Amino acid sequence: KHDSMWKRFVAFHDALSGWLCVLLVGINIGIIAAIVDIGAVWLTNIKIGVCLPAFYLSQEQCCWTASNQTYDQYQHVHCAHWHGWSSLFHVTSDTAAEYVVNYIAYIVTGVFFATICAILVRTFAPYACGSGVPEVKTILSGFIIRGYFGAWTLLIKSIGMILATSANLLLGKEGPFVHCSSCCGNIFARLFPKYGQNEAKKREILSAAAAAGVSVAFGAPIGGVLFSLEEVSYYFSLKTLWRSFFCAMIASLIVKILSPFENQHLGLFYVGNRYRWFYFEMIPFIILGILGGLFGALFIKLNLAWCKIRKTTRLGRYPVLEVVMVALVTLIVSYPNPYTRMPMSTLIRRLISSCEPDDESLLCDYRRNITSAYEKNDSAKPLSGVWISMGLLFSALFTQTILFIFTFGIKVPCGLFIPSLTLGAITGRIVGILVETFVYYRPNFFLFTIECSATDEQCVVPGFYAVVGACAFLGGVTRMTVSLVVIMVELTGGLSYSVPLMCAALISKLVGDALVGEGIYDAHIKLNNYPYLDIKAEFIDQSTATDLMENKQDKNELIMLPRDGLTLSDLITILRTHKYNGYPVIASIEEASIIGFVLRRDLESIIQQRTLSNIESNMNTCISFSRTTQQQLNSIHLYRLLNRSPTTITLDTPTTTIIDLCRKLGAQTILITNEKGHLVGLLTKKDIIAYVKQKKLK
Amino acid sequence: KHDSMWKRFVAFHDALSGWLCVLLVGINIGIIAAIVDIGAVWLTNIKIGVCLPAFYLSQEQCCWTASNQTYDQYQHVHCAHWHGWSSLFHVTSDTAAEYVVNYIAYIVTGVFFATICAILVRTFAPYACGSGVPEVKTILSGFIIRGYFGAWTLLIKSIGMILATSANLLLGKEGPFVHCSSCCGNIFARLFPKYGQNEAKKREILSAAAAAGVSVAFGAPIGGVLFSLEEVSYYFSLKTLWRSFFCAMIASLIVKILSPFENQHLGLFYVGNRYRWFYFEMIPFIILGILGGLFGALFIKLNLAWCKIRKTTRLGRYPVLEVVMVALVTLIVSYPNPYTRMPMSTLIRRLISSCEPDDESLLCDYRRNITSAYEKNDSAKPLSGVWISMGLLFSALFTQTILFIFTFGIKVPCGLFIPSLTLGAITGRIVGILVETFVYYRPNFFLFTIECSATDEQCVVPGFYAVVGACAFLGGVTRMTVSLVVIMVELTGGLSYSVPLMCAALISKLVGDALVGEGIYDAHIKLNNYPYLDIKAEFIDQSTATDLMENKQDKNELIMLPRDGLTLSDLITILRTHKYNGYPVIASIEEASIIGFVLRRDLESIIQQRTLSNIESNMNTCISFSRTTQQQLNSIHLYRLLNRSPTTITLDTPTTTIIDLCRKLGAQTILITNEKGHLVGLLTKKDIIAYVKQKKLK
Repeated sequence: KHDSMWKRFVAFHDALSGWLCVLLVGINIGIIAAIVDIGAVWLTNIKIGVCLPAFYLSQEQCCWTASNQTYDQYQHVHCAHWHGWSSLFHVTSDTAAEYVVNYIAYIVTGVFFATICAILVRTFAPYACGSGVPEVKTILSGFIIRGYFGAWTLLIKSIGMILATSANLLLGKEGPFVHCSSCCGNIFARLFPKYGQNEAKKREILSAAAAAGVSVAFGAPIGGVLFSLEEVSYYFSLKTLWRSFFCAMIASLIVKILSPFENQHLGLFYVGNRYRWFYFEMIPFIILGILGGLFGALFIKLNLAWCKIRKTTRLGRYPVLEVVMVALVTLIVSYPNPYTRMPMSTLIRRLISSCEPDDESLLCDYRRNITSAYEKNDSAKPLSGVWISMGLLFSALFTQTILFIFTFGIKVPCGLFIPSLTLGAITGRIVGILVETFVYYRPNFFLFTIECSATDEQCVVPGFYAVVGACAFLGGVTRMTVSLVVIMVELTGGLSYSVPLMCAALISKLVGDALVGEGIYDAHIKLNNYPYLDIKAEFIDQSTATDLMENKQDKNELIMLPRDGLTLSDLITILRTHKYNGYPVIASIEEASIIGFVLRRDLESIIQQRTLSNIESNMNTCISFSRTTQQQLNSIHLYRLLNRSPTTITLDTPTTTIIDLCRKLGAQTILITNEKGHLVGLLTKKDIIAYVKQKKLK
Repeated sequence: KHDSMWKRFVAFHDALSGWLCVLLVGINIGIIAAIVDIGAVWLTNIKIGVCLPAFYLSQEQCCWTASNQTYDQYQHVHCAHWHGWSSLFHVTSDTAAEYVVNYIAYIVTGVFFATICAILVRTFAPYACGSGVPEVKTILSGFIIRGYFGAWTLLIKSIGMILATSANLLLGKEGPFVHCSSCCGNIFARLFPKYGQNEAKKREILSAAAAAGVSVAFGAPIGGVLFSLEEVSYYFSLKTLWRSFFCAMIASLIVKILSPFENQHLGLFYVGNRYRWFYFEMIPFIILGILGGLFGALFIKLNLAWCKIRKTTRLGRYPVLEVVMVALVTLIVSYPNPYTRMPMSTLIRRLISSCEPDDESLLCDYRRNITSAYEKNDSAKPLSGVWISMGLLFSALFTQTILFIFTFGIKVPCGLFIPSLTLGAITGRIVGILVETFVYYRPNFFLFTIECSATDEQCVVPGFYAVVGACAFLGGVTRMTVSLVVIMVELTGGLSYSVPLMCAALISKLVGDALVGEGIYDAHIKLNNYPYLDIKAEFIDQSTATDLMENKQDKNELIMLPRDGLTLSDLITILRTHKYNGYPVIASIEEASIIGFVLRRDLESIIQQRTLSNIESNMNTCISFSRTTQQQLNSIHLYRLLNRSPTTITLDTPTTTIIDLCRKLGAQTILITNEKGHLVGLLTKKDIIAYVKQKKLK
């Protein structure tokens, strides 16, 4: 009875350990995210100035309690508590000197942050650079990169994120958060033997952790789960779905509890459901979708070209210098334009917000004719301020796009969600203002007459176009669909906009796919030559295993071990000459029916034991893979090392089935038999990846 | 060159046809949904009375233009245009006679609708009964039920949905919509040979159609996609994800365009993000989760027990009578209680809405002390009206639960989302009012002091508890998680509530799983003995193919066809004696190495051709499965019928791998070889399902 209780407890602990593990991951990444958020806000503000009463407050927080708040044309708050660098250095305000001092302080602090970040990454954790999503994808597909999810990487990437985002570089935090979260997953999985010691089980935890990463980056728990499902994970069982869901929920809860200054319950870029959209607006939304697809294709092409140059030329040898240069150019270019000077998340918030009647900012410079309430469209007449900000936005779009291309891939932690969203929001706002102007000047155009005249509400809301544009651009770059829409909905709280968002996401994906076959993550996987067998691509081909065998690049002799008859020295010779990861074992050289498959590392450890212990280690000792162990007492019995059910197929098996075996069952090596059931060949996952690539090029 | 153009066009059409097919499905199910919605609203109102100026308007719509609108205690609108049945029969109002006449009219019309519905289903389309989700799940797992997705089923199920819901029976429309949508999918797939002629490809369309079904039932396109992914589909590739997404979007757009009276852009049960929740409220939310799990377990147990009685006793022979009896009891019981008299969707809307200061309904009978604005909690004192409605809600909960148990499974189209949501919303509102009262009378309780005192907002919003309760109860019944939360968020527009909803969904799933191992759909699949291999359950077992072979229930001799040497008459004898779906072909009786696998139906069609044409049809003609066709001109060559790459495993293959082969690669028959590569056994999917079931019972 005691035994059965113990058994039950073990079973319960076993069932619980997965949940416990993701709980710990969720709590941990939530805490990390809160620290990173608070740190980034503070450092970002230091570039502009300091809050004298309390140095750790941001400009906005600093002015909350101040009595004399004023807002400038770009909706920045100013107050007496807050001191820009020029006023700290006692430079007279409203002079050229003030501008220059602030400009220099902005550049110096920004370059300083970026440099520290690059040095930290280079010195302590080279894996902490980049987005991390391509590598996480590859690892989740079954490849192992040792140390990629280490504790140092986690620490340096977290600090690096704070520094890199506050330097105002064109990068975001979502990819790095996914990487950090996976690091947490890896570290906590070690506490649970069930997950720590089994790579396949560990990947379940990593999938859940990836969901938590996006969840904390955007406060989008559902979107995070879908991102893990659609974009990151390779094997995603329903059990993983539930765990990811739980992990994302916990992480999002923790980050909400710990972020004291943020609005705790609404999205990061909340717009809500105040305005409705009209059916004719589907046309500009589709145009935005097309623009998003075009942008995505352009960005991927140019960024890949630049990354290739970096990889192949001398440039790659000076990563810190490159970061410093990029930071310098970015900061010099972005300061003069007030829209690029502010942090990207602030800019997005400005662009997606709609204009209130009392809004004095440039972007909302419309004629306000409060007295004539009946001429509803009259208030929509854009005045000069709108056109000035249009110009500024155009220049921002141009400069930021170029900077973005050069930034993604530098050796600091860098995600691409926020920059893509920013560029999309700028484009969207521009298109929105154009449509609004068109509606204002041509109210009788046939598309508008039906819907716009029939409503009392504002007919075109440019802020909403910014949301759709952001969705389209991010879709063009990453080729996400469902997860993208859910993330956008969670970010903006705009559930009623789900159909336009879906439309923009699908169109941008279609356009992007037509121009460049894959998203940025897959493109970077290919660039780095990771052994990743794309799970999304459909492979239509009539070929069979025979063709695959003929097209093998590495047409070496097939090495088979006979069940009996090998000596220890034979085995050592084979292991030395043919450096494969594993060897099939057959009945005998004459009759090659498959007995099993044995891994190189298992054989090596046996040989090491034998040679170390030196007892009976005659090099002529026989090796036997037979089941019966009684006959030859002198020989080494390796039956227990055998995988007795290797994946086996016939020569006539279609390539599609072979790919499915790799993708869905995780087969790494596939044995091929002829009609007699004799082993005639062997395919590794790499052979299959090479074949697929080759077929695609044709 | 002309050829290459044509080839390109074919390839383009091939790539496009899937999208075109789901587009048609989406448009079609959108139109059907709009018709069903409008029809159901109209018929539901006829039970109460008629709008005299325009008979097709519902009570609410009828009173829109009326001048003298009044609202009763349950927020029903009344006006002069609208005539209840008593006033049509010129019965004096406010008398017992009025009540009796209305009561009788309510019962007679309701029973009438239900009877017609049951007769239609019984006469024209027996498959149109029930929810349909268990069957759709089974079909998507690879099983074929002929005629289940026919045009008649579609027509009758659509009409039946209108009738059954307007009869005020305890049933919803979501399951039937999934079934109808799959019918559309099946019908349109026939237009595209790529999908119509390949069952595996057709299932991709059906998965997308299922998403559209939920999308139109609730206006929840994203939730629909996730429902298809989490609950319905078996194989769900990313391509299917994108198509489902598109299909759901189109369907939701169409139904929005066509429903003129509904709010077009917000959810069905919109509450928005007006109120925030507090961390101490997680405790009642967890309690609601537990209640949801308990309710789900109770409902599944009792409903299954009743369905078993129906299946095994004489009761099952009178389906129409059963529907009539259930309708009669439902209508008699539900009329006296105003909360059960109204349609369930209206009740849910009442329960989730919060109390405005000018709300005169019973549920909102709080002390309104507008003058003392500083005592903010004072307005929350519940007066007698709240307690009266609490009593009514309690009795509604009790009667509806019992009715729900007997209703789900009767022979009319019936879904279970709306009844589950209703019962959950009732429970949630009750819990919410209790918590609110507790906070009012014990404001200094330690949990409340931190958060409730610190806010100016209303601390406990009972309507929000109704939302969480609805989520928990539906979760307990169906065991959905992510899709449930997304559907709830889309229904209510309450994105800021996603964490409480996630929490309730997970808790109710955990509690429910602990009490009854599976959701209602899986339970009904088991009840009907469909050959469904659960894709969610994790199978942990050390057994191998050997154990599976030993536990086979059907331990018949293994029938193998030799490659050469059989005569036509031999083959016919084998086909007659051993009625298997297919037969393995081996090299020779002596050396049983596997050549391939041949299907019964292919052999039968060959035999039929031979015996019909009668040319050379000597019964002694040899059958040959050899590749070389030149040697024996007299024999029948069946090489091309062979599947030359049947799924083959060794005796040592673990059961988990075998289950994966069935689940992930869709293997129906698995051949087993010994160490020599000779065929020693054969496992069908049914053997594996039986083994898994047997292991679970232990």
